[in-house]
Amino acid sequence: MSFDSECIFCKIVAGEISSIQVYENSNTLAFMDINPIAYGHTLIIPKHHWQNLYEVPDDQLAHVLATAKRVATAISKALAPDGVSLVQANGKGAAQSELHFHMHIIPRTLGDDLKINWKLNPGNPDEIRSAAQRIIRVLR
Amino acid sequence: MSFDSECIFCKIVAGEISSIQVYENSNTLAFMDINPIAYGHTLIIPKHHWQNLYEVPDDQLAHVLATAKRVATAISKALAPDGVSLVQANGKGAAQSELHFHMHIIPRTLGDDLKINWKLNPGNPDEIRSAAQRIIRVLR
Repeated sequence: MSFDSECIFCKIVAGEISSIQVYENSNTLAFMDINPIAYGHTLIIPKHHWQNLYEVPDDQLAHVLATAKRVATAISKALAPDGVSLVQANGKGAAQSELHFHMHIIPRTLGDDLKINWKLNPGNPDEIRSAAQRIIRVLR
Repeated sequence: MSFDSECIFCKIVAGEISSIQVYENSNTLAFMDINPIAYGHTLIIPKHHWQNLYEVPDDQLAHVLATAKRVATAISKALAPDGVSLVQANGKGAAQSELHFHMHIIPRTLGDDLKINWKLNPGNPDEIRSAAQRIIRVLR
């Protein structure tokens, strides 16, 4: 497992930085975005460090999407949003904030008018935890 | 191969509706969005009809992402955008327009200020074709 000592997501995988996790398997990790643009905003990452879509091997992309589907299905059941968007950014123009490949799962509300590049504002920790607990309950 | 007679993307796969294709393999098809929000905006679909992320089998998601990676890499080389975003919509709140699973590959420009739900406006056919030709040249 590669590890980039400058990478926050690698440190989350290693347990050196805490996170609110909802699902984990041998290849991937799902945890709550601490700068959520919606209630239930979740991230899926491969545990291995790859910067972007171009670098991730096909078999690992498959693991990421299988986890994204599993978690998005749970979000859909647990939170009953009006929709769910997957968003994945590569490069500055796409506002990629962390250089470790990650897929956003964003619960949507009709008329929320979200942008593909959003401002990073810390969410309310209690709200983030409550969303996680509701998602985890469905995943179990 | 399932076929939904009401589905535009199924008709594109079957050749009943024309499209500007950039890549095809046995499981997936990549073609230009005719309502592009950026020069080079491309769609990846599984050939089989599934409505959304929740329905697509994991092995088919793997095929879609492998094709998305291949085409995004070609777009990155051919068009040199400032970034590339993947966007995939499920449900009305996410503004899913066609009920056949599809992944958007959106070349990005710094400051383009795009929304996750965008208005569908037909693009200039010559521009769409020229983008496709540049992408195809790299894919070959």
